[in-house]
Amino acid sequence: MRVEGLDTPALVIELPRVQANLKRAQAFADKVGLELRPHIKTHKLPFFAKMQVEYGAAGITCQKLGEAEVMADAGLADIFLPYNILGRDKLDRLAALHRRVAMSVTADSGETLDGYAGRFTDTARPLPVLVECDTGGGRCGVQSPREALELARRIAGAPGLRFDGLMTYPPRGKPAQVEAWLAEAVALLDADGLTPGRVSNGGSPDYYRSDVVRSATEHRPGTYIYSDRMQVGYGHSTLEDCALTVLATVVSRPTADRAILDAGSKALAADRCDAGGHGHLVGYPDAVVASLSEEHAVVDLSRCAARPRVGDKVRVVPNHACVVSNLFDVANLAVDGEIVESLPILARGRMG
Amino acid sequence: MRVEGLDTPALVIELPRVQANLKRAQAFADKVGLELRPHIKTHKLPFFAKMQVEYGAAGITCQKLGEAEVMADAGLADIFLPYNILGRDKLDRLAALHRRVAMSVTADSGETLDGYAGRFTDTARPLPVLVECDTGGGRCGVQSPREALELARRIAGAPGLRFDGLMTYPPRGKPAQVEAWLAEAVALLDADGLTPGRVSNGGSPDYYRSDVVRSATEHRPGTYIYSDRMQVGYGHSTLEDCALTVLATVVSRPTADRAILDAGSKALAADRCDAGGHGHLVGYPDAVVASLSEEHAVVDLSRCAARPRVGDKVRVVPNHACVVSNLFDVANLAVDGEIVESLPILARGRMG
Repeated sequence: MRVEGLDTPALVIELPRVQANLKRAQAFADKVGLELRPHIKTHKLPFFAKMQVEYGAAGITCQKLGEAEVMADAGLADIFLPYNILGRDKLDRLAALHRRVAMSVTADSGETLDGYAGRFTDTARPLPVLVECDTGGGRCGVQSPREALELARRIAGAPGLRFDGLMTYPPRGKPAQVEAWLAEAVALLDADGLTPGRVSNGGSPDYYRSDVVRSATEHRPGTYIYSDRMQVGYGHSTLEDCALTVLATVVSRPTADRAILDAGSKALAADRCDAGGHGHLVGYPDAVVASLSEEHAVVDLSRCAARPRVGDKVRVVPNHACVVSNLFDVANLAVDGEIVESLPILARGRMG
Repeated sequence: MRVEGLDTPALVIELPRVQANLKRAQAFADKVGLELRPHIKTHKLPFFAKMQVEYGAAGITCQKLGEAEVMADAGLADIFLPYNILGRDKLDRLAALHRRVAMSVTADSGETLDGYAGRFTDTARPLPVLVECDTGGGRCGVQSPREALELARRIAGAPGLRFDGLMTYPPRGKPAQVEAWLAEAVALLDADGLTPGRVSNGGSPDYYRSDVVRSATEHRPGTYIYSDRMQVGYGHSTLEDCALTVLATVVSRPTADRAILDAGSKALAADRCDAGGHGHLVGYPDAVVASLSEEHAVVDLSRCAARPRVGDKVRVVPNHACVVSNLFDVANLAVDGEIVESLPILARGRMG
């Protein structure tokens, strides 16, 4: 089927662009000596997770236990879950995963660590735990290299756990600051005989500057596989690299300057980006996706020479690809305008 | 099970609040002589659609064919789809629905009308079509009462269609302007012998001022069933009326002033509202949900006396309930802190 034959709104992924994005990222990792551990939150598809490993990734990253369960079921064997896993239900699920694949997790507090230490006691198969470090991102993480050392010591002292290293989700645009933080922590750990096996950095925005973070041994980019308007704004890629689009129909042209699409915030999500508007209309570079309601996009055509008509199908590059693929149940893969595969987004909706 | 026993993040709906919100809205409709036709986009649950009809609604409103199909399957018999339905696939699905339940739709252009007229030709069972009117909302709709009349004439002239009236999604806070527009259109139609059977107004924000729109015969509020921070901001209700919350776990307390929840933009959505922040933390009125990443909320506790600890479960009233219930697969109904029912959100993800 041709892309335009899909009913709308529909998620369309340009397969050659995905492949090019993966190859480029893997080549960079190889060049600078980083292991690539892609974050599957962006696509939530075992198909692409396997492709990432085939292209050279050392393993994958998931953000949810439910995602990790889907990926383990699909045969992915090395899964990093950089999250504080808390509560009996989740610890039981983590234990079940740990029995069948190579799992690793993070902790940034004694409370989280106590949970792991209480649940994992098998000294023959310890759970690898990394210390999450707040290197300026202002989210989770210990606040100083000294605290990282203290938590590492507690992990190393728990019989069923193994201290595996450090992890950070870095602030954007500050790789030198991230490196300074991590280098200090690594030095403290080295001096204490706790040399980290892995130092895991993350994020797509600064991926192609991640060689500045020399202390890192691996990187966890997610959005790089699809890219989006946000990433284009960060200078990570161009609109021509964006592999994910939402196919939509022009359902109304109430005025000469206004078009309405059948894709609103329940298809494009309300995430904003510096470029303004709610998406890029492919083929109509001067169109502005001015506002979204739940099932409508209002497009300002006032600066456009060519203008789409009622019934036309158009493609929208969203601001943030990761939240968009979380809204659809099916991803349609396209090559040269032809749909070659329609895949259920198996890890979508795995909230816990 | 107690609410706190749910794994997080989880969608929790306070059933008594839903019932109170429905009763209040139905009582208002009865008092001012409006028919209530609730929009199910907010909950996407046949269970609540049936409850709305039991409480006195004349029928329901859906925004997607897929939603209407789910509701028809569940036994809902009168469904309004205030949308331009375009393309052969969708027209076929509309025809299948029209054969088994009382369907009505809208049009705001000749193109949409041509599609209906070409597909619906049975004079014994004409498709009811309303003309969508842009009364200032700036979305879909004909631009003037004169255009509404012209389109109504074309509907009336199509053998397989029936002109059923006017529909608008109004601009917020301008009921008098909406009434002026609709009254002028109704007068033109009356004079032409095309008296509208229904004049359908919509939206929760101005629902309790909808008696100002005297030309309207029915109203399609959606969010009123759950309410949310946006509606509270519009003066529609109070935080104590909000029935939908997201149960989340505090997964990190990196600093004295910061808490991290396991609910980010994939659970709370990135929609903003005038109150600022990304949700209201129940029991912590001075906490600010300062930012969201996909699976984390960053909460600023600096103004809080009491502060939640790692592992605590908390409830968040989101900015926009409709997009939140679109992110979860299951709605947990609660009474007095006890989960009485967990319902699959059957119409979620019905994109087309």
